Amino acid sequence: MGKSLKELAVYLGGRVIGDDSALVQGLAGLDDAGEGQITFLANPRYASKVATTKATAVILPPGADGHGRNVIEVANPYLAFAKLLTLFHVHPPQFLGVMEGASIGRDVSMGSDVTIYPGVWVADGVRLGNRVTLYPGVALYPGVTLGDDVTLHANVSIRERCRIGNRVIVHDGAVIGSDGFGYAPDGAGYYKIPQIGIVVVEDDVEVGANTTIDRAALDVTRIGRGTKIDNLVQIGHNCVIGENCMIVSQVGISGSTRIGTHVTLAGQVGVAGHLTIGDNVMIGAKSGVPGNLPPNGMYSGMPAIPHKEWLRAMGVLGRLPELRKTVSLLEKKVEELEARLGARDPEPV
Amino acid sequence: MGKSLKELAVYLGGRVIGDDSALVQGLAGLDDAGEGQITFLANPRYASKVATTKATAVILPPGADGHGRNVIEVANPYLAFAKLLTLFHVHPPQFLGVMEGASIGRDVSMGSDVTIYPGVWVADGVRLGNRVTLYPGVALYPGVTLGDDVTLHANVSIRERCRIGNRVIVHDGAVIGSDGFGYAPDGAGYYKIPQIGIVVVEDDVEVGANTTIDRAALDVTRIGRGTKIDNLVQIGHNCVIGENCMIVSQVGISGSTRIGTHVTLAGQVGVAGHLTIGDNVMIGAKSGVPGNLPPNGMYSGMPAIPHKEWLRAMGVLGRLPELRKTVSLLEKKVEELEARLGARDPEPV
Amino acid sequence: MGKSLKELAVYLGGRVIGDDSALVQGLAGLDDAGEGQITFLANPRYASKVATTKATAVILPPGADGHGRNVIEVANPYLAFAKLLTLFHVHPPQFLGVMEGASIGRDVSMGSDVTIYPGVWVADGVRLGNRVTLYPGVALYPGVTLGDDVTLHANVSIRERCRIGNRVIVHDGAVIGSDGFGYAPDGAGYYKIPQIGIVVVEDDVEVGANTTIDRAALDVTRIGRGTKIDNLVQIGHNCVIGENCMIVSQVGISGSTRIGTHVTLAGQVGVAGHLTIGDNVMIGAKSGVPGNLPPNGMYSGMPAIPHKEWLRAMGVLGRLPELRKTVSLLEKKVEELEARLGARDPEPV
Repeated sequence: MGKSLKELAVYLGGRVIGDDSALVQGLAGLDDAGEGQITFLANPRYASKVATTKATAVILPPGADGHGRNVIEVANPYLAFAKLLTLFHVHPPQFLGVMEGASIGRDVSMGSDVTIYPGVWVADGVRLGNRVTLYPGVALYPGVTLGDDVTLHANVSIRERCRIGNRVIVHDGAVIGSDGFGYAPDGAGYYKIPQIGIVVVEDDVEVGANTTIDRAALDVTRIGRGTKIDNLVQIGHNCVIGENCMIVSQVGISGSTRIGTHVTLAGQVGVAGHLTIGDNVMIGAKSGVPGNLPPNGMYSGMPAIPHKEWLRAMGVLGRLPELRKTVSLLEKKVEELEARLGARDPEPV
Repeated sequence: MGKSLKELAVYLGGRVIGDDSALVQGLAGLDDAGEGQITFLANPRYASKVATTKATAVILPPGADGHGRNVIEVANPYLAFAKLLTLFHVHPPQFLGVMEGASIGRDVSMGSDVTIYPGVWVADGVRLGNRVTLYPGVALYPGVTLGDDVTLHANVSIRERCRIGNRVIVHDGAVIGSDGFGYAPDGAGYYKIPQIGIVVVEDDVEVGANTTIDRAALDVTRIGRGTKIDNLVQIGHNCVIGENCMIVSQVGISGSTRIGTHVTLAGQVGVAGHLTIGDNVMIGAKSGVPGNLPPNGMYSGMPAIPHKEWLRAMGVLGRLPELRKTVSLLEKKVEELEARLGARDPEPV
Repeated sequence: MGKSLKELAVYLGGRVIGDDSALVQGLAGLDDAGEGQITFLANPRYASKVATTKATAVILPPGADGHGRNVIEVANPYLAFAKLLTLFHVHPPQFLGVMEGASIGRDVSMGSDVTIYPGVWVADGVRLGNRVTLYPGVALYPGVTLGDDVTLHANVSIRERCRIGNRVIVHDGAVIGSDGFGYAPDGAGYYKIPQIGIVVVEDDVEVGANTTIDRAALDVTRIGRGTKIDNLVQIGHNCVIGENCMIVSQVGISGSTRIGTHVTLAGQVGVAGHLTIGDNVMIGAKSGVPGNLPPNGMYSGMPAIPHKEWLRAMGVLGRLPELRKTVSLLEKKVEELEARLGARDPEPV
């Protein structure tokens, strides 16, 4: 039932040091792993644990001390561990077909091997790719398109005409395509601006639980290929998010903002509307971004400033009262000095 | 199939300059509009685009240069554009009746022309007005009341006895009437205080996706007429929100706070509990409000202070370390001065 | 139909002063209570209202002036009021069984007296305790376990193999067990790390509406006994939350952080990942916690510092521009003084 280190090394593109016929049935962390399990060292800080782990084998980076253990050497042990987790624990979804209690509209097209659980609503004109899995409570409004290998977890809602790419995973309760927050003041109150655009979610995107992504007013809110979005994130209408971004939990991005590729927004960050954020920018947790940012910097604070400046400013912040006292004292001393000098120096300056 | 500029001008209460028989089939922005479409100029910054747009007609404010194009002149072009979007794109909801797979309790009263999709739960004693649309997964707990022309999107939950007014729209996954967060410490842990009040949502309110509004402990949490609430907003128990407020995404309002009319809370704002916020107050994004605020001001920061003071303070913030260095240097110089003066001036002061 | 003060005093462990046969049918606040109702005084500030309330009886702490009213004297009037609310308003859930339109998988075990509404999905291998109530749209993925007296409100999702203790309440739309946010960069983009752990929610926990709690990567995300979690909270993978914590709305806790017992996180707080927060710590609203915190302190700000220091610093913040001006002025004056002294004192120092 297990797999040999030789097989695993081939799968990972690494090489075995030690007994390549040793069998492995599963994975665990350095501390928890036992006989028949493989573990990994990603952080050099824990290198000494390689000597004491009870694992059958250890995944190590080139040059690390194997302490005589069975080793699979790879360039990126963390990535290799993730790949083995997939190998051992992620199975292709079962094909259960359209189950009783699902509600399927007219003019719906479906690929092969779909699974549609009870309580799913697929409205008129929806198109589903191959190997799509729709968990209970999923609502696909009219005209929605899903690619291949899409998984929508329980109670996900995809609104009218939105388009979801291939291999997209959406976690429970997320909403894609709700109306953008747009109103025109009409003197008395607010007049709703119809939101007639859509959301396009490109391939390999993952969307966290209870996250909300609003449809565009007129055209498209876009989530770029490979971008990962955590739970409870808000993305406003007309936003364009680039490829391979990491958007951590509870981030909010206001409408019409454009985010480059490979941007990281840490937890609870807020980004104002109508901005352009360059490629490879990183924004520290809880920061607020009020203006455009060029590529490649790291920023923090509210309003966000270069991260290093923010760190220095925050170091002083707690000592502000002390600083203020010092300044008051200086004022008094300078006055005194002026008085004393003035006394001896009666002529006007 | 299109509408003449003459018809549209009547609808908007404006006047045509140019060919009032020209036909329009749809709308688009200044850059994207083409033959048969109407566009608008709201921001004077883009006035030069009026000359180059390919649109059949442009909606302009009084006095703007039409560059010889067909023009509909109105006081508020943005509002006019919103009204035309509604005219062209928003159709009265279809009347589909109670569809198979919906679950309807006892003693439920319904107005005419309702649409109830599969997977909706309408509990005992619920009252629905005319032209109500309930999308799949909507849960109406016992005793809920909805007015006329209410639309509840997929997986919205309205808890026991809450009352929703006319023309209210609630987006997917929003929860109205969950228990307020109330506990009494009992020495060992926390004893739950039953939340027996309700939520009242008045006419013309819109509630965003996955927003949560808690029921009152004893009486009523109230959302005033015309107020618009964005996605992922939290409103605590016993809050009273005035009319025509704008509450942007991820705002949190703690329990028992009273918000006036026409208040704007920008994204990710937090308001503490048991406060009173006056009419027409604006709170900047990410700010935290720890105390009462009188009407008509703009505030920012955490804790929130008048917006202009906050802007000035933030301007200094990044230069704090520099300021601290300057003060240290001054201290040294003043000491030196004192020493030098003291040396020449031996008698005690 | 009412209950006598004598009965109520026994129920509360208090004593009656006045007419212990007086009958009470319900409860209300000091201002609103009328004939046949009982009210309470928790805040001494409102003590004078005891004289004027129209209530039939008042719950008072020892030593408070009853103004001749019927009184039940107890150590903690607020807790007593909560207990009477429960007595008068919270009824044991009705046993309705598995209703038509629910979908129950194979190998499901159920205790006695469960209620499962239409539109609930109970997957294969789920175990339900006694007196479990599942509202419409609840999704229990394969292998989920619920204890006794659990209530899951509409559209709650509990993912694969998660375990929920006794007397747990989960409000509408909350998601327990969604995948943690874990990816390994693979050069091109991000490789998803399978999240194969679970969430364990211990006894007497309450989870707010649309809150999300991620499953662990390998082992367990744990919510300790008696902890109360408000709406729209995010708890990352591998977190361990202690017993009897209060986690207020819109808080975010990053992955692998350990929170002690009896910790309070106020609204919109963010806690970074891989931290340890000691017992009895309180974090002020909107604060950000970047590092470990020892037990028993109160902290505020972003980054969080001891609360008193933060209050003092915030007091200065608004006056920063003024402080900066003062320092500039001092610089000039000191320069002047130096010049004057230098003029009289030509020899080098």
